[in-house]
Amino acid sequence: MDEDSFQQIQDLGFAKLIKKFEALAVTHNDAVLQGIGDDASVARQREGYVTCSTSEIFLEGVHFDLTYTPFHHLGYKIVTAAVSDIYAMNAEPEQVLISVAIPNKYSVQMMEQLYKGIGAACADYDVQLGGGDTTASHQMLAISAAATGSVKEKDAVYRSGAKKDDIICVTGDLGGALAGLRVLLREKKAWQESERKQHFQPDLQEYETVIQKQLIPKARKDLVKAIHESKIKPTSMIDVTQGLVSELSRLALQSNLGIEIYSPAIPIALQTRAVADEMNEDVDKYAFYGGEDFEMLFTLPEALIEKFKAEFDDFVVVGKMTDKDKELTINTGEEQDYRIDIF
Amino acid sequence: MDEDSFQQIQDLGFAKLIKKFEALAVTHNDAVLQGIGDDASVARQREGYVTCSTSEIFLEGVHFDLTYTPFHHLGYKIVTAAVSDIYAMNAEPEQVLISVAIPNKYSVQMMEQLYKGIGAACADYDVQLGGGDTTASHQMLAISAAATGSVKEKDAVYRSGAKKDDIICVTGDLGGALAGLRVLLREKKAWQESERKQHFQPDLQEYETVIQKQLIPKARKDLVKAIHESKIKPTSMIDVTQGLVSELSRLALQSNLGIEIYSPAIPIALQTRAVADEMNEDVDKYAFYGGEDFEMLFTLPEALIEKFKAEFDDFVVVGKMTDKDKELTINTGEEQDYRIDIF
Repeated sequence: MDEDSFQQIQDLGFAKLIKKFEALAVTHNDAVLQGIGDDASVARQREGYVTCSTSEIFLEGVHFDLTYTPFHHLGYKIVTAAVSDIYAMNAEPEQVLISVAIPNKYSVQMMEQLYKGIGAACADYDVQLGGGDTTASHQMLAISAAATGSVKEKDAVYRSGAKKDDIICVTGDLGGALAGLRVLLREKKAWQESERKQHFQPDLQEYETVIQKQLIPKARKDLVKAIHESKIKPTSMIDVTQGLVSELSRLALQSNLGIEIYSPAIPIALQTRAVADEMNEDVDKYAFYGGEDFEMLFTLPEALIEKFKAEFDDFVVVGKMTDKDKELTINTGEEQDYRIDIF
Repeated sequence: MDEDSFQQIQDLGFAKLIKKFEALAVTHNDAVLQGIGDDASVARQREGYVTCSTSEIFLEGVHFDLTYTPFHHLGYKIVTAAVSDIYAMNAEPEQVLISVAIPNKYSVQMMEQLYKGIGAACADYDVQLGGGDTTASHQMLAISAAATGSVKEKDAVYRSGAKKDDIICVTGDLGGALAGLRVLLREKKAWQESERKQHFQPDLQEYETVIQKQLIPKARKDLVKAIHESKIKPTSMIDVTQGLVSELSRLALQSNLGIEIYSPAIPIALQTRAVADEMNEDVDKYAFYGGEDFEMLFTLPEALIEKFKAEFDDFVVVGKMTDKDKELTINTGEEQDYRIDIF
């Protein structure tokens, strides 16, 4: 059967569908003693280690739009979202449980694409698909991903650990996922308004980087690897999923400190700037408030920055932890600084 | 604000809503070092132990019908469904992550009722609410629960461990949750057809036991406690969520054996029989195919049955493990036995 076929899920049955899913995500993680196939998955514990657990829920029409999201990318992205939270504790993800509620407008082939994406992400992050729940839905596709991972208790990094004068660092660049979303929504609108929909060609090529950032973001496994190898442990860490300002606020609140940010230092890719310019929007807003970048925000004592840079260089310094009364101060490098009320 | 008020969630905001949820589920489990409030929850590992993980997804209109399901009961039930899978591994549940996607037709007060039910279940099962994801939905309420728990590696009980001639036992009684559902659906239909809907009084009192079994089922924590205290470990175990025949088939398949069941021994409550009679339906079908009872099916060597009965008496013997070629044989006690093809 080729991939364009449309086989109804009820014609195959859930038991056989689940067998297909199993075959599409075959990565084994050594900590997992029992994956799919029992009441629960089973992972080995070790003295001195902790288990980190997180869960995400993605709803069609809220978190993804299937008019421009391939199922494969959707599967990849939800695994990224779940394991990113495990990396943000400085832990190694071990397994992911996927629960999916499928309306009958989607075919067996579409769900296979979804699980191919899940399988590709499992391979990239070395995590095992440990089971989950597969069920029907009336209208909307709903997907939940729960990830677990391990780290030595003494190596776990919390949001609450930042100290005054610690330097705030951010990996990669910010605002790209929102820029990608803006382009996709513009092209969707153009398609909807097009009189010859079948011949409509979206204009996406020059925006490839930001569209990839929106559709198939990568979790920062490389940062956690560098932390483990360098033995330079951040004092606090959080992944950037709701936008920089939101994550900075949480870090400040939970570390009971203030934050000062130098906004010219915020890393923004050229393509992100180009999109903001085209949309006549302020690119700083993309970086400050755009979600889903899955970059990592972390803090280090100033004395360790250069040493860590020698081990891992895909980050920049964007500010520092201050007294609590400074709240979240954005230093623009021009006359007017501004402060955001976070408490 | 009283409970009949309708406060829009967007008027409160998700951050404050999550704070309310936190305050409604306060049970602490000692294994949990970090609950709500970081990228992931953190639980202590111990040498020689394993972590069991499971996840469930419940969709409005598929898994629950809010015309007859109070939010409080719904919250209780999804936690029950998740921890039941942990108990089925002979493990102690430690925490549950709840991800919820909320359409704006539901109020802050309704969601508080949901989390009161989640909190009540967390208290009953000694599990900590470890976080999750709270988000918007367009039309339907979707809830996912992921539970984790621990057990000594040597004490974990798998579906695959049953041996030939082991005795098959089942706790409580079966078919009750389906009987409750049948009554609720009948009363819903009567209400829909009623000309004076506001004055309609559903006839539920005499069905209280089966309706409770449908709306607020209990996971069999007591069985797992008895197993730990008696040190009599089942050779295999599975919780009855999809119906007895489905669970027996999985046990047979995964233990690579056949099963013989004595159908007159299947435990069925009087109220379940009464409902089947009223509906002119075969009560054995309720017991064989009805889901959501959350009873436990387990196997023991024959020599241990009496000894275990002295420690825990809410179970009956329903059959035994046989050679694989017997598949699933239902011995009715009358002339005609029948066999169900499971391979």
